[in-house]
Order: sequence, then C-alpha cells, then structure tokens
Amino acid sequence: MQSLNNLDYASYLKNAIRTVPDWPHEGVMFRDITPLLQNPKAFRLLIDVFVHRYMDADISLVAGLDARGFIIGSVLAYELNVGFVPIRKKGKLPFTTIAEGYELEYGNATVEMHTDACRVGDRVVLIDDLVATGGTMMAGYKLLQKLGADVVEAATIIELPELKGGELIRSNGLPLYTVCSFDGA
Amino acid sequence: MQSLNNLDYASYLKNAIRTVPDWPHEGVMFRDITPLLQNPKAFRLLIDVFVHRYMDADISLVAGLDARGFIIGSVLAYELNVGFVPIRKKGKLPFTTIAEGYELEYGNATVEMHTDACRVGDRVVLIDDLVATGGTMMAGYKLLQKLGADVVEAATIIELPELKGGELIRSNGLPLYTVCSFDGA
Repeated sequence: MQSLNNLDYASYLKNAIRTVPDWPHEGVMFRDITPLLQNPKAFRLLIDVFVHRYMDADISLVAGLDARGFIIGSVLAYELNVGFVPIRKKGKLPFTTIAEGYELEYGNATVEMHTDACRVGDRVVLIDDLVATGGTMMAGYKLLQKLGADVVEAATIIELPELKGGELIRSNGLPLYTVCSFDGA
Repeated sequence: MQSLNNLDYASYLKNAIRTVPDWPHEGVMFRDITPLLQNPKAFRLLIDVFVHRYMDADISLVAGLDARGFIIGSVLAYELNVGFVPIRKKGKLPFTTIAEGYELEYGNATVEMHTDACRVGDRVVLIDDLVATGGTMMAGYKLLQKLGADVVEAATIIELPELKGGELIRSNGLPLYTVCSFDGA
C-alpha cells in the first residue's frame, strides 16, 4: 500500500507513461499513456488529480478532444456531475456543426463541435491527453468561444515545452494545467 | 427532482438520444448520443446503469472501442477501480499490436490492441456505444481472446436488432447487454 499524501503524484504518473521511439515516424519520441490507463492505481490517481483541481471551480461542462481526450474528460465530467461534450475530428458528428482548422507538421486538420453542445456562459474545462504545438487545443478553444462558453482552463496530462504549445495557449489568455512535462519533440 | 427508483431508465435514456435522418448517407437513421452525454442527469444515469451491472462481477479490466466506447468505458473502469484499455482503429497505437479485420457496409476496417494490454485470465467488459452489424464488437472480442482474456460480457447503449449484430455476438458465445434498442438500420 502507498498513501496518496506520501506520493509525488506527478513523478508517479510520469513513470507510468511509456516512451516509444521513432513513432509515428523517425525522430519522434511518442509518449504512450496506455500503460498508465491500464494500471488501476495510476489511472485512478490521474483522474483524481483533475477532479480535485476542478471540484470547487463551479464547472458546468467538460469538453474532450478526439479521441484520447475522451478517456479522461468523460470521467472528469461524471465525477463533477456535469455533462460531457466531444470535440471531434472532421466528419464524425451528425448534427449541425461549427468547424475550426489548424496546422499539423504536414498539412492541416479540422475539429468540429455540435452547435448545441454548450450554452452561453457555460464554465468549461477543455481536456486532451497531450499538448505539443497546441494546435488542437487552440482550435477547441476557438469553437467553445464561438458558442459563448467561458473556458476556465485547458488541461492535459503531458506537455512538450520545446514545441511551445503551452506558450501559445497561455499567451492567448487560456490558462493551461499540465500534470507532467517531457523534453524533446 | 426525480428518483432513480421511480424511473424507467431505459426509456429516459432512449429519449435523450437524438435521431439524425440520412446521416452519414441517405436512408440511415443515425442515433446520436451527444445530447445524452451533455445532459448531466442522463449521462450520470447511463454510467450508473453499467456500474451497477458490473460492480459485483469481479471485473479486472474494461476495454473500450474507438472512439465513443472510450467515453463510457473509461468512466466504468474508474468506478470499478480497474484499468482501461483502448481498442483502436488501425495505425493509432504506437507499441506492438495485434490486429483484427472486419467488414463494413462498403469495404473493410481493422482494429488493433497493444499486445500487453491485458493478461491471461483478465475478466473483461468490452464496451461500445452501439451495436449494428456487430463487426467491431466481434473484432474486439477476438483480440481479447487472442491474449487469453475472459470476456465476461459485451455492453452497449444502443442495439439495432434488424441488423442482427446482437444475434451474431450472442451466437458466438459472448453475452451482450444493451440499454435500449431502435427499429431500423
């Protein structure tokens, strides 16, 4: 047994993340959260870190980014007793949507949200597993703002500071909370 | 206020699902769970239905199918104090994988799982949002079986009985639990 109060949770969680070199292509150190998710103690701790951060922040909605953001965002929403909104890759949502494009290393991508996914004044936590260049998170932020939501904070498990996504997000007025950081791209 | 014990939860949840006609193509009545997810009461009830079903079933792992299966599977795993395993569309998992193909209306698709995602004898609930032809669920079942897991039950929010996916799954020896059914394809 190990008590939560004796635990450096950020190190514990960071150690549960696996690095896969040269994936999806040479030179990338991919940070793989699946070992963390499948470990009951680490998974529970990860979620509880987010729950304790937001439980008294008067949040009315959690928005998660497709698809790993769904895994943490939905549990956070359940624990906060609020609804969950998926922000999806283009072409996945069936109802009326708004869209926002962003740049990738090679080419572009688009995320979409249903137009009735939130209400003006909703206090939202926007969540994904990782912030690299920050493109996806910024696109999700813009969608929520278009619908009049108040995005209280963006949250993520991993930040890659060298790619400056956190800098981009914070300089656009959106606070970003990160559990741990990794060097490199 | 409305008490859970006075509630026909299947009807309540079914009424929270939106039907979008002719999406993704003409003739399809798409069953959209996003209104259910963004409604705090309906979302909580949905999850609690699954939690109560499996809380005394000695489950050791929840496996969720990409991507809507992640939204319900991860919360169930958290509430059962077990790990969560994502079964993903081809090309999304960075570590060593096993793969299983299945047929779609037009063409084929493949799902993958990490080879270290579960252990021999793990008691698994396999979850997705909807069972239509049953192809994705059966592919996930085969992956878990290849790694020696004991798949206790498949679970889903919606079943479309006319497409006979439930029949296929059950006739292959896997029990299937469904919250509600819709007529048509």
